[in-house]
Amino acid sequence: MASEAPLGKRLNIENINPHVRTAKYAVRGELAVKSEEYRATLAKGDPHDLPFNQIISANIGNPQQLDQQPITFFRQVLSILENPVLLEKEDVLINHLGYKPDVLERAKWLLKKVGSVGAYSASNGVPAIRQSIAEFLERRDGFPANPADIYMSAGASSGVNTLLHIICANDKTGILVPIPQYPLYTASLSVLNATCVEYHLDESKNWGTDLAVIKQAHEKAKADGVDVRAIVIINPGNPTGASLPEEDIRAVIDYARQERLVILADEVYQTNVFVGEFISFKRMLRQLQKENPGAYDQVELASLHSISKGMVGECGHRGGYFELVGFDPAVQAEIYKFVSIMLCAPVIGQCLVDLMVNPPKLGEPSYELYQKEYDAIFNGLKERATALHKAFEQMEGVECGSPQGSMYLFPTITLSKKAADAAAAEGRTPDEFYCMQLLEATGVCVVPGSGFGQKDGSLHFRTTFLAPGTEWVGSIVKFHKEFMDKYRD
Amino acid sequence: MASEAPLGKRLNIENINPHVRTAKYAVRGELAVKSEEYRATLAKGDPHDLPFNQIISANIGNPQQLDQQPITFFRQVLSILENPVLLEKEDVLINHLGYKPDVLERAKWLLKKVGSVGAYSASNGVPAIRQSIAEFLERRDGFPANPADIYMSAGASSGVNTLLHIICANDKTGILVPIPQYPLYTASLSVLNATCVEYHLDESKNWGTDLAVIKQAHEKAKADGVDVRAIVIINPGNPTGASLPEEDIRAVIDYARQERLVILADEVYQTNVFVGEFISFKRMLRQLQKENPGAYDQVELASLHSISKGMVGECGHRGGYFELVGFDPAVQAEIYKFVSIMLCAPVIGQCLVDLMVNPPKLGEPSYELYQKEYDAIFNGLKERATALHKAFEQMEGVECGSPQGSMYLFPTITLSKKAADAAAAEGRTPDEFYCMQLLEATGVCVVPGSGFGQKDGSLHFRTTFLAPGTEWVGSIVKFHKEFMDKYRD
Repeated sequence: MASEAPLGKRLNIENINPHVRTAKYAVRGELAVKSEEYRATLAKGDPHDLPFNQIISANIGNPQQLDQQPITFFRQVLSILENPVLLEKEDVLINHLGYKPDVLERAKWLLKKVGSVGAYSASNGVPAIRQSIAEFLERRDGFPANPADIYMSAGASSGVNTLLHIICANDKTGILVPIPQYPLYTASLSVLNATCVEYHLDESKNWGTDLAVIKQAHEKAKADGVDVRAIVIINPGNPTGASLPEEDIRAVIDYARQERLVILADEVYQTNVFVGEFISFKRMLRQLQKENPGAYDQVELASLHSISKGMVGECGHRGGYFELVGFDPAVQAEIYKFVSIMLCAPVIGQCLVDLMVNPPKLGEPSYELYQKEYDAIFNGLKERATALHKAFEQMEGVECGSPQGSMYLFPTITLSKKAADAAAAEGRTPDEFYCMQLLEATGVCVVPGSGFGQKDGSLHFRTTFLAPGTEWVGSIVKFHKEFMDKYRD
Repeated sequence: MASEAPLGKRLNIENINPHVRTAKYAVRGELAVKSEEYRATLAKGDPHDLPFNQIISANIGNPQQLDQQPITFFRQVLSILENPVLLEKEDVLINHLGYKPDVLERAKWLLKKVGSVGAYSASNGVPAIRQSIAEFLERRDGFPANPADIYMSAGASSGVNTLLHIICANDKTGILVPIPQYPLYTASLSVLNATCVEYHLDESKNWGTDLAVIKQAHEKAKADGVDVRAIVIINPGNPTGASLPEEDIRAVIDYARQERLVILADEVYQTNVFVGEFISFKRMLRQLQKENPGAYDQVELASLHSISKGMVGECGHRGGYFELVGFDPAVQAEIYKFVSIMLCAPVIGQCLVDLMVNPPKLGEPSYELYQKEYDAIFNGLKERATALHKAFEQMEGVECGSPQGSMYLFPTITLSKKAADAAAAEGRTPDEFYCMQLLEATGVCVVPGSGFGQKDGSLHFRTTFLAPGTEWVGSIVKFHKEFMDKYRD
């Protein structure tokens, strides 16, 4: 059959989808790949010449890869959902395995509503779980929510992907995206070949929003012929760790109303707040609607949440949801169809969403342990954030606001010309160079600020404060001192 | 703050992404939505005037929504993965809950390799599980596989989405897609604004491939300026239920080689084969490479598999993978980056892939029960397929080849002009009209052939044969007779 000579590969780097090619996603980029290679080397146990004995993955908010233990109540319920036959041995579960009665009750309730966790659910998620979410939102915000406006997703990332797919009509569609930002946004807009309209956050005000800056970016984009349709807000901030004050949220909603911008509120860190309280965009919008009857009725808001962060930290289960407010029903029907194509979000992840939004209540058998575990995680994160911040304060040329929320610190680093030249010689930006040197010297993997966007001339890196212990913080301090000495101008 | 009058919604059906709007996905379309409304009505338990008492969801291959029980070994392992603390009570698991030692061993092994199932894995999947898959592929095909070429995904759908995103560069990129097809392909190509180049399967030859027809479709597309890059094959077939013979597979690979087409082999029904044996594209490609040294080295193949189908039937867990053969490493790096943006496939689903490809072996404690359950599911599906086929044979104007594989039958129906006119009066195609009438009369939900594509003038519907019992088959027979009588010309 075969006779002609082969002609080379059909697909090559030059002819594949150019929009995928231009997408950047540094959180899992070169540094992360290299850190995994080192981890594999260390795991082999053979003699090696690496100057460290473990990899600290501070590049990604992945709590259970590090120290964070899952919440007992959640995992006990999931174990029954995965093997419902266990319910035939209630006495064993209770008397031998220490499962409390409310664990069994919740598992039974979920199984009744879900059927098998091995079956596809409705495309937008299990109706009873969307009802649980709606009730949670009402408790959280003091305003009702409608399960029909809630769409469950495989983590918040998948929700963002859905929303951007709907909103972006062509390459002139613009989305206002904060800089620095979690690169899901810029990467997704690259893939969709839409326009990312960057607006800078104000580092001098704890990385808050500055309406004048947003307006300037927006006006410039409009003048360039961009059809700006939406604004992304990440609150609490990623990578910044900021927690937005009420006045910033009000100002953004008001601007969105005036300018007819859809608000995409990424609120996955809503329980990771150390300073002040979390205020949801939904609550603030409803409050503005109440204060100004009719005036805010046309505002369209999508707010996203996830089981990956907070004290839940169940990234691997890929659960999340978004709630729509004020969307046109015909547009919602298209969203439903779009999510249908991928069938449904993982059902076990959907069940975890139910557990997250409806945890054991005071007086219930599992409450005490749940609350103890929850508080221990919260306090542990706060302590580590404080300790890491304290270390940064002592480091030459490093500036970092106090920890406010999320799982990250995003310090400014000031590097010498000599360091910049050494970086350029390797074809790297100075922050990439710094982070690569840090990895190679200490095994600590962080992400350079350029992976999130930063003002020209400024340099940062993002680190989680999830890793336990203080040794790795000490190794950063030591590395930094040596780096600064080595590259002193 | 608020002063100006609202201006209407920013997003409406006219201005959202037109490529999402044009996408069609009938498997979860109007009929499915209506069937869920009926199900909700019936679930309320109030008096109703529906002429049926249950909904039979024969529209979607969702085994565990119907009769299929999960495999005990799989779910026992998952229950431990979700709650690893159970391993502290080995005696309880073994003596009180009947877990066999190999369940505990597998859970320990997976936990060692995965860490917590609540943590993100590597973007392309847990390395040890990709190794398991590679070993499975080698056992299945007799040729080695490389874990570095395996990418784990959230079901096969997500894998198809990834591959099409990479391949489709612009609206001139064409993909050869079989008609009828599972509408994931046409829907994804719509969203990507690429060109679907339809080639018809040969109903007269059990829905096999006809190379002359493929060539004709391909040549026409090329003449129209389409840059045809890939060919999709679904084997065993969806919706057709076909199982391709070796000569069809050889012919497609040879054509792909000559024409430099990437082969996308959707092989998710590889264990649902009733006639002959499943032959993977990978095995046949390697065999051709062996027989013709050098000649097939440039062929690029992506083959997809899933935990959703077969005797596993774990749709809700969203697990799957694809293997690449002959892809350019630089292209693979872009695939890695693309999947990174959504972080990773659900980790519990990844673990289920491991269990699927590496089930209990002869001599291991869980083997006997596993094999018994597996065989019962296989035989049950075969029996139901045969019974349903027999019913179709007795129905006026219905023609259907014998069941060969997958989970579907796709009979031709011949309807009267009177039926066609009644359909047109409702703005429906005749097959949509027939299926809607079937749902309204019996509660049985199937999908009209137009949802998959069919030759002009021909009419079909797709039904799964997953539902237990024979009552629902009887209700189809009865409905059909009444429908034919009512609409007789």
